[in-house]
Amino acid sequence: MQHLDVLIVGAGPAGIGMALALQKIPDLKFGLVERGRIGESFRRWPLETRFITPSFYSNPFGLADLNAVNEHSSPAHFAAMEHLSGELYADYLNMLVQVHKLPVVTGCKVLEVNTTAAKEFVLETEQGPLSARYVIWATGEYQFPDLQAFTGADYCVHYAQVATWKDFTAPRYTVIGGYESGVDATVNLIKQGRQVRLLVRKASWDRQSDDPSVALSPYSRERLAQAMQSGQLEVIFGVDVTKVSQQDDGSFLIEAADDRNWQEQHQPILATGFVNGGGAQQIARLWEWDEAGKIMLTEADESTLTPGLFLVGPQVRQEDRIYCFIYKFRQRFAMIAQNLALCMALDSSQLDPEPGVWGPFGNSECCEGCEC
Amino acid sequence: MQHLDVLIVGAGPAGIGMALALQKIPDLKFGLVERGRIGESFRRWPLETRFITPSFYSNPFGLADLNAVNEHSSPAHFAAMEHLSGELYADYLNMLVQVHKLPVVTGCKVLEVNTTAAKEFVLETEQGPLSARYVIWATGEYQFPDLQAFTGADYCVHYAQVATWKDFTAPRYTVIGGYESGVDATVNLIKQGRQVRLLVRKASWDRQSDDPSVALSPYSRERLAQAMQSGQLEVIFGVDVTKVSQQDDGSFLIEAADDRNWQEQHQPILATGFVNGGGAQQIARLWEWDEAGKIMLTEADESTLTPGLFLVGPQVRQEDRIYCFIYKFRQRFAMIAQNLALCMALDSSQLDPEPGVWGPFGNSECCEGCEC
Repeated sequence: MQHLDVLIVGAGPAGIGMALALQKIPDLKFGLVERGRIGESFRRWPLETRFITPSFYSNPFGLADLNAVNEHSSPAHFAAMEHLSGELYADYLNMLVQVHKLPVVTGCKVLEVNTTAAKEFVLETEQGPLSARYVIWATGEYQFPDLQAFTGADYCVHYAQVATWKDFTAPRYTVIGGYESGVDATVNLIKQGRQVRLLVRKASWDRQSDDPSVALSPYSRERLAQAMQSGQLEVIFGVDVTKVSQQDDGSFLIEAADDRNWQEQHQPILATGFVNGGGAQQIARLWEWDEAGKIMLTEADESTLTPGLFLVGPQVRQEDRIYCFIYKFRQRFAMIAQNLALCMALDSSQLDPEPGVWGPFGNSECCEGCEC
Repeated sequence: MQHLDVLIVGAGPAGIGMALALQKIPDLKFGLVERGRIGESFRRWPLETRFITPSFYSNPFGLADLNAVNEHSSPAHFAAMEHLSGELYADYLNMLVQVHKLPVVTGCKVLEVNTTAAKEFVLETEQGPLSARYVIWATGEYQFPDLQAFTGADYCVHYAQVATWKDFTAPRYTVIGGYESGVDATVNLIKQGRQVRLLVRKASWDRQSDDPSVALSPYSRERLAQAMQSGQLEVIFGVDVTKVSQQDDGSFLIEAADDRNWQEQHQPILATGFVNGGGAQQIARLWEWDEAGKIMLTEADESTLTPGLFLVGPQVRQEDRIYCFIYKFRQRFAMIAQNLALCMALDSSQLDPEPGVWGPFGNSECCEGCEC
């Protein structure tokens, strides 16, 4: 059985970014396992979906690309594009794996995680058992849609199950959910020439807030404004959907808490998010869960129930902070790596940020390869 | 005559960003004069022009907006938009002036700058004389187009003289210049339904480089790709225009160095950039100029000829570095302010970057007003 110091589960942006931080610790034996392909979630995005955070190559002047998983790379640089598709972003992640020779094993599903008396983790995988002193869970949320948001939600098709909006050929659809994925579904259906009824609980674009975790991004806001002008969109606000059922004639009845209801010929589209904890649900018993269904973590992002088990990615919460974008959750990588190096008495000096090199307005020294 | 410690000339992003840095020095007497309105150049952009660097409000996680002029503001936050218009960006600058109560005098053109034996600057302005120990020149480049790029260039209309592309109602136009403004002109003319012939010396979109100072931005690249597919665009490469002349029938003849030539019914559009030194040409005798026509500066961005005179903005060069975007030139503000505080024995401690608070991947502490 192969033994590692640190095993990362999941080779998406969280897992790969974390691995690039761990790689800065000399003599650390670490590896990644991934049940699908590198960047699997991104390869499953609808064909038409683009990043809502813009990428830009400002690295030589000390501003990291919002969607990069390490300091030096840039999706904008990689793809010469501002809003990447999921496929291109997965290619960017794959490029990083190749360039940095990261030890990733793909097509390797973790079947079971157990802890031993000797404070080790033993993982049963499709490619045999693995043991590790520390495990970092990086399985994201996209592949874990909430398919039970309300009674009859299974009559709907979830955003995360859509391969391409070209498959939606009926004259009109109803979309349930007014945040990023609901707006993206709406915008793309309208681009395909469809009529859309969008049922929204709370308008995330009314500027109650500007934090992208709770308010619509500028990119979606602008696309929505265009969609509004198309004449193909009807938005209904204040809708708390409680039930979807199929009628005798095959149509669907959507019912709201305030007794309003709508009939629709075709499967409603569900854009109501992901299960609490996302992929961390796969090992639910190894975390403590709070009353709101969130995972409880130490300040070091370690499970409060299972020492040695860490969480990275969009499900991380610390007090009121939500780390649900790449530029947010990536900032936890160095802290976790530093703690692990400390625990194992390994050299963490390469993880120290160089003081003054990176600032809010850039480094004063030009880095290698800078042509400016 | 009013006397100041530091006078900034120009209330665009360079002047206002610089003023916000100076404001952190207690007891410093400083002011700004602006011949037009706040953000004048941006108010003169063509109506349809948008920023090519995307804005995004990632401030609470320690990544400054690419187009912000200080650490805490964000054009994306201000306008709920990713690619601002010139008018909205000028409004953002005006908001900063109001919120921070910056001492800006608008409609105050500087007519003459003289140095005295007592190492003071005396400026004659439309609103009377002013004296200052230090002058920071922040007059940008947009209002100083190069109208003599080749013989007969004055037959053309320069990009910076265009109010709106809606005024261009002829069926077709020729655009000279293949960098950002040439591509922007082309894209907008095509949107208005025009045919465009684009004459390009060197394709800045062929990815010889990824630095936005020398290569086309992703935003323009994508818009150009769309324009290419419209069937309304003819791009001709390797064209070094040497002459434009008007024919007897009123049409224009465009001649290239390799003897190719093109005839055009309507005024060609000039997108060949700005005069060397931009607005710094207004006080040309106070700078030393190198053989390439660039302004020579000390490492502190001070004139090598006139001690006490500083340059900020897109014309700043240091070795091979070109500071021609906001996210580039803004990083010089704190350095200049620190040097001035040192010279005047004033407290510069508020200018010191807080170590570890801002990093490439964000601050670990949440800042005030962070809702995430």
